[in-house]
Amino acid sequence: MSAPLISPSILSADFAQLGEEVRRIDAAGADFIHVDVMDGHFVPNLTIGPGVVKALRPHTKKPFDVHLMIAPADPYIAAFAEAGADYLTVHPEAGPHLHRTLQMIRDKGVKPGVALNPATPLEAVEPVLDMIDLILVMSVNPGFGGQAFLPVQLPRIERLRQMIAAKGRDILIEVDGGVTPDNAASILKAGADALVAGTAVFRGGPDAYAENIAALKAAGSLAV
Amino acid sequence: MSAPLISPSILSADFAQLGEEVRRIDAAGADFIHVDVMDGHFVPNLTIGPGVVKALRPHTKKPFDVHLMIAPADPYIAAFAEAGADYLTVHPEAGPHLHRTLQMIRDKGVKPGVALNPATPLEAVEPVLDMIDLILVMSVNPGFGGQAFLPVQLPRIERLRQMIAAKGRDILIEVDGGVTPDNAASILKAGADALVAGTAVFRGGPDAYAENIAALKAAGSLAV
Amino acid sequence: MSAPLISPSILSADFAQLGEEVRRIDAAGADFIHVDVMDGHFVPNLTIGPGVVKALRPHTKKPFDVHLMIAPADPYIAAFAEAGADYLTVHPEAGPHLHRTLQMIRDKGVKPGVALNPATPLEAVEPVLDMIDLILVMSVNPGFGGQAFLPVQLPRIERLRQMIAAKGRDILIEVDGGVTPDNAASILKAGADALVAGTAVFRGGPDAYAENIAALKAAGSLAV
Amino acid sequence: MSAPLISPSILSADFAQLGEEVRRIDAAGADFIHVDVMDGHFVPNLTIGPGVVKALRPHTKKPFDVHLMIAPADPYIAAFAEAGADYLTVHPEAGPHLHRTLQMIRDKGVKPGVALNPATPLEAVEPVLDMIDLILVMSVNPGFGGQAFLPVQLPRIERLRQMIAAKGRDILIEVDGGVTPDNAASILKAGADALVAGTAVFRGGPDAYAENIAALKAAGSLAV
Amino acid sequence: MSAPLISPSILSADFAQLGEEVRRIDAAGADFIHVDVMDGHFVPNLTIGPGVVKALRPHTKKPFDVHLMIAPADPYIAAFAEAGADYLTVHPEAGPHLHRTLQMIRDKGVKPGVALNPATPLEAVEPVLDMIDLILVMSVNPGFGGQAFLPVQLPRIERLRQMIAAKGRDILIEVDGGVTPDNAASILKAGADALVAGTAVFRGGPDAYAENIAALKAAGSLAV
Amino acid sequence: MSAPLISPSILSADFAQLGEEVRRIDAAGADFIHVDVMDGHFVPNLTIGPGVVKALRPHTKKPFDVHLMIAPADPYIAAFAEAGADYLTVHPEAGPHLHRTLQMIRDKGVKPGVALNPATPLEAVEPVLDMIDLILVMSVNPGFGGQAFLPVQLPRIERLRQMIAAKGRDILIEVDGGVTPDNAASILKAGADALVAGTAVFRGGPDAYAENIAALKAAGSLAV
Repeated sequence: MSAPLISPSILSADFAQLGEEVRRIDAAGADFIHVDVMDGHFVPNLTIGPGVVKALRPHTKKPFDVHLMIAPADPYIAAFAEAGADYLTVHPEAGPHLHRTLQMIRDKGVKPGVALNPATPLEAVEPVLDMIDLILVMSVNPGFGGQAFLPVQLPRIERLRQMIAAKGRDILIEVDGGVTPDNAASILKAGADALVAGTAVFRGGPDAYAENIAALKAAGSLAV
Repeated sequence: MSAPLISPSILSADFAQLGEEVRRIDAAGADFIHVDVMDGHFVPNLTIGPGVVKALRPHTKKPFDVHLMIAPADPYIAAFAEAGADYLTVHPEAGPHLHRTLQMIRDKGVKPGVALNPATPLEAVEPVLDMIDLILVMSVNPGFGGQAFLPVQLPRIERLRQMIAAKGRDILIEVDGGVTPDNAASILKAGADALVAGTAVFRGGPDAYAENIAALKAAGSLAV
Repeated sequence: MSAPLISPSILSADFAQLGEEVRRIDAAGADFIHVDVMDGHFVPNLTIGPGVVKALRPHTKKPFDVHLMIAPADPYIAAFAEAGADYLTVHPEAGPHLHRTLQMIRDKGVKPGVALNPATPLEAVEPVLDMIDLILVMSVNPGFGGQAFLPVQLPRIERLRQMIAAKGRDILIEVDGGVTPDNAASILKAGADALVAGTAVFRGGPDAYAENIAALKAAGSLAV
Repeated sequence: MSAPLISPSILSADFAQLGEEVRRIDAAGADFIHVDVMDGHFVPNLTIGPGVVKALRPHTKKPFDVHLMIAPADPYIAAFAEAGADYLTVHPEAGPHLHRTLQMIRDKGVKPGVALNPATPLEAVEPVLDMIDLILVMSVNPGFGGQAFLPVQLPRIERLRQMIAAKGRDILIEVDGGVTPDNAASILKAGADALVAGTAVFRGGPDAYAENIAALKAAGSLAV
Repeated sequence: MSAPLISPSILSADFAQLGEEVRRIDAAGADFIHVDVMDGHFVPNLTIGPGVVKALRPHTKKPFDVHLMIAPADPYIAAFAEAGADYLTVHPEAGPHLHRTLQMIRDKGVKPGVALNPATPLEAVEPVLDMIDLILVMSVNPGFGGQAFLPVQLPRIERLRQMIAAKGRDILIEVDGGVTPDNAASILKAGADALVAGTAVFRGGPDAYAENIAALKAAGSLAV
Repeated sequence: MSAPLISPSILSADFAQLGEEVRRIDAAGADFIHVDVMDGHFVPNLTIGPGVVKALRPHTKKPFDVHLMIAPADPYIAAFAEAGADYLTVHPEAGPHLHRTLQMIRDKGVKPGVALNPATPLEAVEPVLDMIDLILVMSVNPGFGGQAFLPVQLPRIERLRQMIAAKGRDILIEVDGGVTPDNAASILKAGADALVAGTAVFRGGPDAYAENIAALKAAGSLAV
C-alpha cells in the first residue's frame, strides 16, 4: 500500500501565526492543508472563515482541503472558492439540497466532498457518488480537537470503499478524528487514502512536524 | 477634549500573522484590540472564534474588546471569557434575554457591552444602562470592512451620551464603521470615547500603523 | 385635503386573471398596484412571489407597491427589484439589519418602505426616517383580507406624521387593513396619504371598480 | 394601599402532587394560581404544558394566571384556553405579531397579558395597552426559581403605572421574580397590584403556606 | 408501453393569465395540472400559494398535482386541500414527521405523494410506500425552471419501480426537471408513469401546447 | 416467549397526582415508568420537563424510561440525567450529531436509546447499534395519546430484531403507540421486548391498573 496523503488540521496550529504554521507543515511534508470551518451553529464551536483561508493562500501551493461544518453551506461556497479552497467538503445535514451545493462547488472549479458524521447513514452519500472527489469520514464527533478515534468507523470505511469501487469512480476517502500513528495502519487497511491529523502532527512543536508526518505516512507500509 | 481610545479591528489585519499584527498595533499605540466575531448567521460573514482570541492573548496586555456578531450569544460567553476577552459586546437582537447575557458576562469577570445596529432603536439599551461598561454604535452595517461612515449616527451618539449622563454612569461610547481621521473629530464631538478603526489603522502597512493611530488620536484636539 | 392615493391590493383580485385585473384597476383610477407577498413563515399565509410581479409588469405603468411579508427579506430584494417593483416595503421584524435591507432596496433603484404591524413600536422606524419613502401602517394583522380596521391605529398615524414632519422629509404614509369609504376620512385626517384597499375596491366585480375607487378618493374632501 | 393579589408559582410546588398543592395554596389565601409554562426554546428550561393545566382545573376555582414562556405562542393559545386558563400572558419577543396573539387570547374568552423581560423596552407594550388586562414585569430573567429581585425594575413599574393611567385603562401590574415580604412593599409602592411568589410562598412546607401568603399581603399596608 | 401522463407545470405559464393558461393546457391534452408551490425557505424561490390554486380550480376538471416545496408543510395541508388539490406531494426533509403529514393529506381526501430531491436517499420513501399514491422524482434541484435533466436519476427511477412492485402497490412515478421529448423515452423506460414539463409544454406559445404535449406522449411508444 | 416489560406512559396518568399514580403503577406491576417529554417544537404538544421527573424520582425504584421528543436534545441531557432518568431516548431527527448525544447520555451513566418515527428509515439507527440499549419504535406519530396502532410497523420491528442479532448486541426493542392486549402478541412475536402503554394501562382507573398490566403481560405467552 502506498503512503497516505496527510492533511494536517490547522485547528491544532498556532492561530497567532497561521501563515508560518502553514509554511512549516508544507515543508514538513503535508500533502493537503486541512481547514476546519465551524459556525457555532452546525457544531458547538466557532473557528475561522473565508478571510483566514484567503490570507493563508499565498503561503503554500498545497491544496486547501476545507471542511465546512456550517449550515446552510450555500451562502458561503463562493467566498471559500474565491479564497482559494481546492476541496470543499459539506455535510448532508447542512440542508435539503446536497446535490445543489455540490453543483455550486463544482461550478466554482472546486472539488466537492461530502463529510459523514459518526452516525450519518452511508446511504446519505450514495446518490452523489458520481459527482464528488472526496468523502470525509468523521471518526469523532466534529467540533473539537483531541478526541479519541472511534473504531466503529472502520467497517464503514470498508463499505464506502466498496460503494466507490462499485461505481468505478476515483474518490478519496479521508478520515478525520483521533488519527495517530498507532491506528493509521488499520484506517488505511480499511480503505482510507488520506488522513487528517491535528495533535498527531502538531505535538512536539515545529521541530517535530516532519517526523510526525513521516510517522503517519509510514503507516502506509504497515497497512499492507 | 482628551485623545480618544483607539481600538484597531483585526478584521483588517493579516490573518496569517495575527500575533505579530497584534504586537505591532500594541506598539503603535492602540488602546484596545478590537476583535470582530461573526458566525455567518447573525451577519453575512464568518470570521474567527474563541480559539483565535486565546492564541492572541499572550501577544499583548492591551484589553481585548470583543464584538460578538453572533446569535445566540449565551453558549459562547464562557469560551470568550476564558480565551481572554476584557470586553464582550452583544447585540440586543441576539435573543430575547439581553439582561441574562450581560449578567453572564459580568459573572465571568468581563466588562459587558451592547452594540447598536444603525437601525436599532436607542430604547433597546436603556433598560440595561445600569449594568454595562460600553456601547458600541455601529456606523455601518456589520459584516464587512471598508464601508462608508453613516453620518446619521452622529445625533444618535449625542442622544446616547445624554442618556448615559442622566443615569450618572461611566459608560464608554465606541464607534465602529468607516471611521477616518476626517470624520473622527465630529464623532468625538458628538460624544464618543473610543474609535474602532480597520482600514484607517492598517492601510499603508506596518510602518504606517503608529502614524495612522496618531492621526486618529489627534482628532481629539480638533473636537474641542 | 387632496384626494388620497389608492393602492388596490391584488390579494382581493381574481388570481386566475391577474393581468386583466391589473389593467382594470389601472383604468378604474388606481394610483398604485399593491402586491401582498407572503412566505408562509413571517405570516400564516403564502401568496405570490417575484415571478407574478414580473408577469404583471407589462400590464400597467402604475407603480407596483410591493409589501414583503417575508423574513428574511434580503435574499429576495434583487428578484423583486428586477421584476419591476417601484416600492419595496419590509418589516423591521424581518431581521436584525433593517438598515442594510433598505440600503439594498435603494441601491437597486427602488423606493424603500417600512411596514409597522399593529403592535410594532413606532420607535422601530425612527432611526431610518432619513432613508425611506413610505411607511405602511398595518391597521389589521397581516396575512388575510377581510378583517376589520383597528381604530387604535389612528393616533399612531398622527404621531408618525409628526415624526416625519420633524425630520422635514417627504414620506408617504400608507394604511392597509379594513379601509372603507366610511373610515377613510378619519384615516386621512390622521395623516395618511395613501390607502390600500382590497374588498373596498374589488367588491361588486369589475364594473364597480371605478366607483369603488372614486368613493375612497372622495373621502379626501370629507377629511378636511 | 389595599392588600396585593398573591399568585403562588407552581414552579416551586411539589410536581408529584400538584392537585393537592393547588388546593393547599387556594385554602391558604392565594388569589391566583401562577403557572410557568416553558418550552426549552424561548427560555432554557422545560416545565409543563396544557395537559397539566387541564388536570389542575378541577382542584380550584381561583383564576389560573398562565405565563407562556414559549415561542411561537399562537399554536398553543387554544390548548391553554381550553385547559382552563383565565389569564394568558405572552412575551413580545415570541413573534412579530403580538397583536394577533392577544386577539386570539381574547377571542377565546381569556384575559390577555404581556410579560416584559428585564431588558425589554417598555415601548413594546405601549401599542397594546388598549387590549390587555395584565402586564407581567419580570424582576429576574425567566427560566428558573430562586433568583434575586432586580431593584432596577422598580422605576419601570412606576413608569408602566403612569402609562396605564394615561390610557385610562384597568390593567393589573404583576411582578415576578425574587419577591419576598422584605421587598414587597417597595414593589407595591412602585405601582404593582399582584405578586408572583415561588419560594416566598412554598418555603417551610404546606403548614407555612397561609402564613407566607399573609406576610406578602401584609406588605400592602406597609406600602402606604 | 402506454402514453405517459403529462403534467404541465404552471411555473412556466403566464402568471398574468393563469386561468386561461390552465384552460389551454387542459384543451391541449394535459392529464394533470402541476402546481409548484415554493415558500422561499425550503427552496430559494417564492411562487404561489393556496389562493392561486383556489382561483384556478373552476377553470379545469383535470387533477391538480400540487408539489409543496415548503417546510414545514403541515400548517398548509388543509388550505391546499380546500383549495382543490387532488395530489399533494411533500418532501421528507420538510420535517421529522412525514408519516403524520401524509396522514393529514389522506384525511382531507387528497392523494399523498412524496418528492425526492436528487440527493435524497430512496430509503426515505420506503417506510411510507403503503400510504402514498405518487412519488415525484426530481431530476433537477427544485427552485427554478429551465435546468438540464440529470441522467443519474434514471437508475433511481428503476429502483423505485422495483421497490413499488415489491410492495404490490399502485403508485405513480412522476419525474420533474428538464424533461424533453428527447429524454422522455428513457425516463419512461426506467419506469416513470408521469412527466412534469414546463418549457417542453409552454415553449412556442399557446398554439404549440397541443403539439408539445403530443410530442411528450409519443415518447411512450418509443419507450417500448 | 417470556412476558414483556410493561412501561406505562404517564402521559395518560392524572397530572394532578403524578406521585401517587407512579406508586400505583409500580405496585400494579409496571417494569418501567415511561415519561413522554415534549417541547412543543419537535412535536405539536408540550408536556413535562426535568422538574417533574425529579419530583417523581422518590416515588418509585422502577427505571424511568424517558422519551425525549425535543430538538435539540443536547442542552437537556444533563438535567434529565440528574433528575433520575435511567433510559434517555432521543430521535435521530433531533440534530445532526446523534452520536454525540448518545455519548453524552452514556457519559452521564444513563442508558441511551433511539426512537424511530413511523417514517424514519431504519438505516438511521444502524450506525449507533453498538452504543445503545434501547430502540423505541413509534407505532403512532408522537405527540398525543389515544391513536390507533400502525400495523405497518410490525415488519420494521422484525427487521430491527435481525439487525440487532447481526450485531450480537443486547438491545431492548420497545414499542409505543396504540398498544393493546389485542395487538400485543403480534408486536412481541415480531420481536419487541417492551411495551409502552397509556390508555391500555390507565383505563378503568386505579383499581384496574394491575389487571390491565397483567393483560398486556399475558400477551407474551400468546406470542409463542
